[in-house]
Amino acid sequence: MTHPFDKAIALTPLGEDRLAGATSPAYANMAGPYGGITAAVLLNAVLIDERRQGDPVAMTVNYCGAVADGPFEIAVKLQRGGKYTQHWSLELTQSGGTRSTASIVCGARGAVFSHVEAGMPEASPPEEVAAIPVPGPLTWLDAYDMRYVGGAPPFATAPHEPLRDSGSLVWVADRPARPLDFPALASIADCFLPRIVKARGLMVPLGTVSLTTYFHATAPEIARLGSGPLLGSARSKRMHANFFDQHMELWSRDGHLLATGVQVAWYKE
Amino acid sequence: MTHPFDKAIALTPLGEDRLAGATSPAYANMAGPYGGITAAVLLNAVLIDERRQGDPVAMTVNYCGAVADGPFEIAVKLQRGGKYTQHWSLELTQSGGTRSTASIVCGARGAVFSHVEAGMPEASPPEEVAAIPVPGPLTWLDAYDMRYVGGAPPFATAPHEPLRDSGSLVWVADRPARPLDFPALASIADCFLPRIVKARGLMVPLGTVSLTTYFHATAPEIARLGSGPLLGSARSKRMHANFFDQHMELWSRDGHLLATGVQVAWYKE
Repeated sequence: MTHPFDKAIALTPLGEDRLAGATSPAYANMAGPYGGITAAVLLNAVLIDERRQGDPVAMTVNYCGAVADGPFEIAVKLQRGGKYTQHWSLELTQSGGTRSTASIVCGARGAVFSHVEAGMPEASPPEEVAAIPVPGPLTWLDAYDMRYVGGAPPFATAPHEPLRDSGSLVWVADRPARPLDFPALASIADCFLPRIVKARGLMVPLGTVSLTTYFHATAPEIARLGSGPLLGSARSKRMHANFFDQHMELWSRDGHLLATGVQVAWYKE
Repeated sequence: MTHPFDKAIALTPLGEDRLAGATSPAYANMAGPYGGITAAVLLNAVLIDERRQGDPVAMTVNYCGAVADGPFEIAVKLQRGGKYTQHWSLELTQSGGTRSTASIVCGARGAVFSHVEAGMPEASPPEEVAAIPVPGPLTWLDAYDMRYVGGAPPFATAPHEPLRDSGSLVWVADRPARPLDFPALASIADCFLPRIVKARGLMVPLGTVSLTTYFHATAPEIARLGSGPLLGSARSKRMHANFFDQHMELWSRDGHLLATGVQVAWYKE
């Protein structure tokens, strides 16, 4: 049986560097698909391209307009390929209108100097932390096993007086379990709920406008992890004048920093 | 007299959403231009576009290939414009080959809920910190007044044994002084020398592959700052398998977080 994630990121070549895909009910968000699944399908368009060399290193996804439930097309352009890096540009369209754009850098990874400076946050083991209830308030939440070690976002509550800090620490894995890979990481990188809601205890109209993820782990390092879980941390540095940022880290259970990333989201009030 | 920065980001419309520019000797790097000035000229292409609405909020620049000294062209595409955000894609080419791509999001900024969670690093005032010598080892360094409060990168030294941490804290301003604006911030966001050199005390072949900057300050908030200086902090979280990340913050002297950003760079060994 095909995992819902693999169904959601499946693409059919249309020729001339175009691919066809469709949104998946399992990853539905408030309106249209969860941003992480859009990132994953864009990354998959590069991963299945026969010209692709090396592992994904960096990706930026821009959410230009709401993706409607249903089919979409992805146009893939190999901007430049060198010995060490490969640069790709992508556009996701529906009815001829751009809904998302992305840039993806792939790179040759080798056994050279390695050093980690960030420290893994201390966290209770996932077995000792309760998972958030299913069904969640948004369908895509059910596609993840999320266990908040600290800073669980308020799913339904009164506004916080005073504000709380924006940080969260969460064990996360695909539900049902699925072996980790780059598309899985690209999607999980967006699993942190809006930090402004965490801080304020108040849902306001909002939406991610741009998401950047750096992959530090190589393909074999990710494969070694099985289906996880991963430890994710996220916080915001500033919320100001209708936009706020989020900074995230994804760690393997045994202490490897797999990915770092940022996103900026619009909020109305 | 035109400031060297304004000369460097000047563009001439060619029609059909294409613009002509040229590299500037004042911002020369090891080979080709400093990455920050490329970011600034790409941002300027959007800022001078008559369709532009709102302030820049997010930009990602991908350095696909070395820019040669001399003329270049920038192609600008307005991907989608809405009431709250506008999405742009850009390509910088030389002799028909893509050298850089960028995505830029502009947004309408208003007086809504505002909150800052990051704390400004403690730093001696810029008047009490020595500026790095002129001429610097790279021409573009002379275009900035940089005063390292802590973590000055080793410009010529022996490899560090043991490694040092990758962090730096620096007061930075355009030299000669120039009123701050979005292009200035876009350029300064890249002024932090490679963190891998800071940590290792060793120059290795390297180059930025992707740079993402989020602008938290609005146009009037930046204009208020005159010519600065700004306090910048940068560090790396992981250096692994030929790529390392850098995370940066830019603060106004009076404690406002103006911009946050990340970059990922390739290194050879």
